Amino acid sequence: MSKLVALGTIALDNVNTPVGKVDDVLGGTASHFSAGASPFHNVSIISVVGNDFPEEHLNFLKSINADVNGIEKIDAKTMRWTGSYEGDMNHAKTLTVELEILNNFKAEVPETYKDADYIFLGNTDPDIQLKVIKQMKGPKFIAMDTMNWWIDNKKAELLETIKHVDLLFINDAEARQLFGIHNLKIAASKALKYGPKYILIKKGEHGAILFSKDWHFTIPGYPLDEVVDPTGAGDSFAGGFMGWISKVDDISESNLRKAMVYATIIASFNVQDFSMNKLKNINMLDIQNRYNAFRDIVRFE
Amino acid sequence: MSKLVALGTIALDNVNTPVGKVDDVLGGTASHFSAGASPFHNVSIISVVGNDFPEEHLNFLKSINADVNGIEKIDAKTMRWTGSYEGDMNHAKTLTVELEILNNFKAEVPETYKDADYIFLGNTDPDIQLKVIKQMKGPKFIAMDTMNWWIDNKKAELLETIKHVDLLFINDAEARQLFGIHNLKIAASKALKYGPKYILIKKGEHGAILFSKDWHFTIPGYPLDEVVDPTGAGDSFAGGFMGWISKVDDISESNLRKAMVYATIIASFNVQDFSMNKLKNINMLDIQNRYNAFRDIVRFE
Repeated sequence: MSKLVALGTIALDNVNTPVGKVDDVLGGTASHFSAGASPFHNVSIISVVGNDFPEEHLNFLKSINADVNGIEKIDAKTMRWTGSYEGDMNHAKTLTVELEILNNFKAEVPETYKDADYIFLGNTDPDIQLKVIKQMKGPKFIAMDTMNWWIDNKKAELLETIKHVDLLFINDAEARQLFGIHNLKIAASKALKYGPKYILIKKGEHGAILFSKDWHFTIPGYPLDEVVDPTGAGDSFAGGFMGWISKVDDISESNLRKAMVYATIIASFNVQDFSMNKLKNINMLDIQNRYNAFRDIVRFE
Repeated sequence: MSKLVALGTIALDNVNTPVGKVDDVLGGTASHFSAGASPFHNVSIISVVGNDFPEEHLNFLKSINADVNGIEKIDAKTMRWTGSYEGDMNHAKTLTVELEILNNFKAEVPETYKDADYIFLGNTDPDIQLKVIKQMKGPKFIAMDTMNWWIDNKKAELLETIKHVDLLFINDAEARQLFGIHNLKIAASKALKYGPKYILIKKGEHGAILFSKDWHFTIPGYPLDEVVDPTGAGDSFAGGFMGWISKVDDISESNLRKAMVYATIIASFNVQDFSMNKLKNINMLDIQNRYNAFRDIVRFE
C-alpha cells in the first residue's frame, strides 16, 4: 500500500466567527490535512507539539489512523493561533499567534517514513520543506503549499523549493503576488516554468483551477447554506486531494481531476463546523452523496 | 419562429482600460445583449437614441438582424458613459454619465413586438420594466436584470416588478444587498419567494449560479489569457442566455443549463475586445469550439 507523508503544523486554535466561538480546539495544517485525507488514506505526520498538547487531540489523530511517530514532542508550548472571521468570512484576522515551538522543530523524517510515495509539504519555511524532500528516498509525487509571508520574506528559497515538487497548491492572491500578474492563467504558466507539473490555484468559495502544461481543469466551490468556520479549508482540501491520489496510487489526468472534486467536497464539510468536528462525523457514503450532488450541480449535457 | 424582445439602453461609450482606450464606441445594455444573442437569435430592441446617434452603429445593429423599429429617435443627446477599469478590471469606475435622454423615454412597445415569446428587461427603472411587461400579450418567459442603484432607491418597486418575471439576473454583490445576507444560496431562496422560477447570480470572472426551487447549476468562468474590456460582459451574458433559449424555444432544465454555458462563452468573447468588436468577428464554429473547450475544462468523469 502506498504511503502518504505530510509535513505541517499542529496547533491549538481559538476561533471566533459570526456563528460562534471555540477555544483550545485542534488546528494546524497537519491536523486538517490528515482529517481531510482520512476517508481515503491514512497520513504519516511530521510535526511538533509541546508537552502541553492534550492527549485527546493525539488520540483523535490516532483514531483516524494517522502515524504520529513523526510528531516530535518537545519542552515548549504547542503552537497556538487565535483568530476571528467577520462578515463574509473570506479573510481570517489573526489576533495572536505563538510560533516559538517552530524554532526548535528539526523536521527529522522517521526512517519508517522515508520510502513514502506521496509527500505533502504544508505551508512553512521553504528551507524546511526542502530539508524534508532531501530526506526522502524517491517519492512518486510531491506537493507543497505556501503563503504570502514566504513570498515576502524568502522568495528565492521558495522558488528553489518549488523546483523540486510536482504540484504547487497556492491561493489566487498568492499566485498573483508571487508571479506579479493578475491573470491566473498567465501566473500559472509562469509557475509551471519553475518545474512543477501542476499548479493548483485555490479560490476559496469560488472553487479552484488545476493547470498543467497541456490542460487545465476548473471547478466551482460547493454551495453551502451555512459556513461555520473556514479555518483549515485549504489544508483539508489538500488532504482530500492527496488522500484520493494516494488511495488510487495513479497520477493520471482523470484521477487528478477527481482528486480536485473530492478535495472540494472534503473542504465543504470542513467549513461546516469548528475544527475537525464535521469531518469527524462523516463517512464515505456522505462523501459520495455530496460528490454525486456536486456532479449534478455542474453537469450540462 | 419565436420572438425575443429586449428593453435596454443604447449608449456611446468612452472606455479606458489597462490595455487601451476607445471613444464613441457602441455600448449600452441593448447593444451588448443583441450582439450576444445574435449567433442564436435576432433581437427586437426597445430603446432610445438621440439625433446624434451615428448611422454606422444603427447599421451594425441591423447587420445582426436586430429589429430596430422599437428604437425611438428623439431630439436629445444619446446616452453616453465614460468609464475606466484599473488593475484586475473587476470594477468599472464611472467618470461621467449622460442619462438625460432617458427622462423622455416612453418605453412604448411597437405593435409588432407585443406577441413576443421571450422578453429581456435590461437594468433600468423597475417601473419602466413593469410598463413593458404590461404591454405584452402573453410571453412564455420574462427575464430581468437590475443594479444597486434601484435597490437603494426604488426597492419596493423593484420587488414588485420581480414578482412578474420568470428569471432574475443579478450579480453576487447585488443579491447580497437586496436580500441582506451574504450566503448566496440563502439569498437566492429568498429571491425565489418573490415569484421568479429562476435566480441567476452572476459572479464575474468566478462564473455564475442558476437557482430554481428544485435544483441549482453552477459553472466557473471561462479562463482567459487576456481581458481587454469587461464592459457589457453581463449584458452579453444575458444575450447569449436568452438567445439560446429563444432559439430552442423550450424552457427545460437541460436547456437552461446549456443556455448558461453559452452565456458564459459569449461573455468570454465580449471581454476580449472593446465594445462588440470581438463578437462581431466570431461565428457559430468559434462558439462551438469554445463550448467544447469549456466542456473539457470542467469534465471529471
